[in-house]
Amino acid sequence: MNRPAGLLALSAALAVQPAAAAPVDLDAVRAWRAEHAAAILEDFAALLAIPNVASDAESIRRNAAHIARALEERGVTTELWITGEAPPIVYGRLDADGAERTLGVYLHYDGQPVDAERWTSPPWQPTLYTASLEDGGVPRPLPRPGEAIDPEWRLYARSAGDDKAPIPALLGALDALAAAGASRTSNLVFFFEGEEEAGSEHLQRYIEEHREQLEVDAWIFCDGPVHQSRRPQLVFGVRGYTGIDLTVYGAARTLHSGHYGNWAPNPAHRLARLLASMKDDDGRVLVAGFYDDAEPPGAAERAALAALPPIDDGLRSELGLAETELGNAPLADRLLLPSLNIRGLASATVGETARNIIPTEATASIDIRLVKGDDPARILDRVEDHVRGEGYVIVREEPDLETRRAHPRIVRSIRRQGYPAARTAMDLPISRQIVAAARHAAGDDLVLMPSLGGSLPLHLFTDLLGAPAVIAPIANHDDNQHAPDENLRLANLWYGIDLMASLLTMD
Amino acid sequence: MNRPAGLLALSAALAVQPAAAAPVDLDAVRAWRAEHAAAILEDFAALLAIPNVASDAESIRRNAAHIARALEERGVTTELWITGEAPPIVYGRLDADGAERTLGVYLHYDGQPVDAERWTSPPWQPTLYTASLEDGGVPRPLPRPGEAIDPEWRLYARSAGDDKAPIPALLGALDALAAAGASRTSNLVFFFEGEEEAGSEHLQRYIEEHREQLEVDAWIFCDGPVHQSRRPQLVFGVRGYTGIDLTVYGAARTLHSGHYGNWAPNPAHRLARLLASMKDDDGRVLVAGFYDDAEPPGAAERAALAALPPIDDGLRSELGLAETELGNAPLADRLLLPSLNIRGLASATVGETARNIIPTEATASIDIRLVKGDDPARILDRVEDHVRGEGYVIVREEPDLETRRAHPRIVRSIRRQGYPAARTAMDLPISRQIVAAARHAAGDDLVLMPSLGGSLPLHLFTDLLGAPAVIAPIANHDDNQHAPDENLRLANLWYGIDLMASLLTMD
Repeated sequence: MNRPAGLLALSAALAVQPAAAAPVDLDAVRAWRAEHAAAILEDFAALLAIPNVASDAESIRRNAAHIARALEERGVTTELWITGEAPPIVYGRLDADGAERTLGVYLHYDGQPVDAERWTSPPWQPTLYTASLEDGGVPRPLPRPGEAIDPEWRLYARSAGDDKAPIPALLGALDALAAAGASRTSNLVFFFEGEEEAGSEHLQRYIEEHREQLEVDAWIFCDGPVHQSRRPQLVFGVRGYTGIDLTVYGAARTLHSGHYGNWAPNPAHRLARLLASMKDDDGRVLVAGFYDDAEPPGAAERAALAALPPIDDGLRSELGLAETELGNAPLADRLLLPSLNIRGLASATVGETARNIIPTEATASIDIRLVKGDDPARILDRVEDHVRGEGYVIVREEPDLETRRAHPRIVRSIRRQGYPAARTAMDLPISRQIVAAARHAAGDDLVLMPSLGGSLPLHLFTDLLGAPAVIAPIANHDDNQHAPDENLRLANLWYGIDLMASLLTMD
Repeated sequence: MNRPAGLLALSAALAVQPAAAAPVDLDAVRAWRAEHAAAILEDFAALLAIPNVASDAESIRRNAAHIARALEERGVTTELWITGEAPPIVYGRLDADGAERTLGVYLHYDGQPVDAERWTSPPWQPTLYTASLEDGGVPRPLPRPGEAIDPEWRLYARSAGDDKAPIPALLGALDALAAAGASRTSNLVFFFEGEEEAGSEHLQRYIEEHREQLEVDAWIFCDGPVHQSRRPQLVFGVRGYTGIDLTVYGAARTLHSGHYGNWAPNPAHRLARLLASMKDDDGRVLVAGFYDDAEPPGAAERAALAALPPIDDGLRSELGLAETELGNAPLADRLLLPSLNIRGLASATVGETARNIIPTEATASIDIRLVKGDDPARILDRVEDHVRGEGYVIVREEPDLETRRAHPRIVRSIRRQGYPAARTAMDLPISRQIVAAARHAAGDDLVLMPSLGGSLPLHLFTDLLGAPAVIAPIANHDDNQHAPDENLRLANLWYGIDLMASLLTMD
């Protein structure tokens, strides 16, 4: 653990605030923001100019110090938690007078590695464009103070969307509230991670070691883009993750397909039959018990699903799909069920390098997404039980000749590590309060998603720390996250400031 | 067409021979061979020292000239047929006084490319060993004239087995017969190919252009090794060959398996179900009509199958197989049926490089072996009909977005070229004569195989030229053909001389 010397000495002028009506009047926030927009962008560009790949230890610490300093300037008491060479956690605490509730704010300040040659502007040389590149945007200087700003302008840089965008939103909201004399209604805990894109290897350890500093009533998880419909959203859960690789064996050496074809078993064909047995033509997983542990959505979640904007037809058209699984079941519904997906298949080679052989083995790599109620190990047990039910003996290492001679059907199973899903009930009082605050900023456009399809280790917050967690994205849905030309649309940053100001002053 | 100048002028002292009883007394042949063994090996080593990869045009022509000269020295009228840059055909003709029958002799003098670093002795530096390398053989000089020779010695060099071995066998037989004053009973036509290992691209053209010079009563096809049981064999057919690559499509771009898993169709899973529908758990092909055109073996073939040495149990043990297809149906029986074999599978990646995606496509490469009666195009039509029966639309090019939107199930099918099987009935009079002659050399050990499992364009001889063809292998079964350390066991060369002498003097 380490703390930047001197920062603690900064006085926390903003930490104690006068009482005022909650939630904040957004007109005041927007007026302040319009007046200070050039400074907000300049500060954000300075942050984006610091390279932030988790493995670049020196740069990642510069990011952490930079962010801690910005927090301290706003009265936040900060700490940098450090474990060995791991990127630091920027931790902060900012109490509010008389507040009985504490909100945690999570974001990550590291970004995906870059392939600089594929970027239009250099990834760590933040560049403002007059529109998205796809829409013909051209570079322009950062605005001078007072200059009119088009909300469709976009700032291009690595992590502009994923996931530094919430930082200027939060800082802007703190400043705007202070300027407006609006009271924050919750104590705040900040937990900013620096290795999310590198797999969050130390996240659990950091949380376990600082459990008492992380006691909050709810987590606001600032990550990801808004809804595919371009509308703002709150998301109440994520799917968990696990996986399994299955390898089926044929003869111990590659055989000539003429001399032995249709005498020696073909492992690719055997694997095809095994995989075919796992899922029907409609996409229903046939592994016994696969869906048994999945907690069904409650009334609030069902209502939210029913209210979602229709995106399936547009997605199908964009992706060139005539139909999707289970008779075009809606995407959002499917994300509330565990999934079994073949992410890769391999046996010998295809195309120009294919030879007339019977392969010695065939492998399928499968990933499994879990929903609330599913246990990673238990669902892998069920998949393995299914494999055994198809007549296979399961081994953990490459089988030797004796094992092969003893068993006609052998599968080598490699189980991946995994973690469970997380889902916060949408009808908890704190959930309702967060929804109301977000609607204050977003209006009726707000989309409420019971769960993302993707996975985050959110369970460490919801289960290990035992607090509800709601994901509150800011970035535009087309922010090119993880890709070249990542960008943030300014309208989304302005929304982020509104959203943070509303959350910080919610009832 | 081209002929080496001067060679025609050689007198053909051996072409006219005195009458004598047929078949030849092998004691005389063996005595002559024992006396001349050192010279036979020296001559063979000189031939093996000439590099013989088909693409090495200059070396391959040196081989052809060398072989033609050896034939001319024995009274054979030779021609070198040349088409552009293609390796020449060494053609030869040697009549026998009063013979009404003409036998054609096929072999190929080109060899597989080499990876010289993996050879114990250089591939084109023929080296005699005292046993196989696996049995601890060590190099030794070629024997001096009169020195005792162990038949277990092996000569290591590219093409020692595949397929130059029949050349010293044939030359030795001609010399031994001449020395013994034994009459050949057939006119002989020699057809030695120089690009078999490179795919026989010009074979059909050579045959069509020289059809009248290739009129024979039967072809002796000198290629391949003896039976896996190590016993000598005659083989009466080969399987034909074709193939098809099937690609199934998912979304037009790679999708995140969390965000779209179990909503977007997974092409790897679809392909697995398609492949699973083609063959049952026992190995029976389920494509309608797949077995319909296969000519069943006749009485002679069934008797030969029943008399085959049992090799299946040993093979299963060697290959680490607990069981083989169709309830352990014998290998030789399975080779008389067409086969459908998945030779490769691919979709995205497995192992350490696998990512959590839904692949855009999945491909299976399938090879199909045909038996007598099967037509390559017709059997591919049946496979495609099966694919359509599973609900797929077949396309020939990568489908565009519009095609994808219109059809939920699309397979891109790439049909490979192919050629039919060939099989010579074992109860033809000429077949019986060849069997009797081979048995004269091999004794009761001789194995009679209705068909190889592998494929050769034998149909060009049996169907295009309309003559029976019998494969008469000489090389040891463990000759490492196509691999490093290819070799010929001397006992097999001695057998080859006996076999050729018997065939050239058969009733």
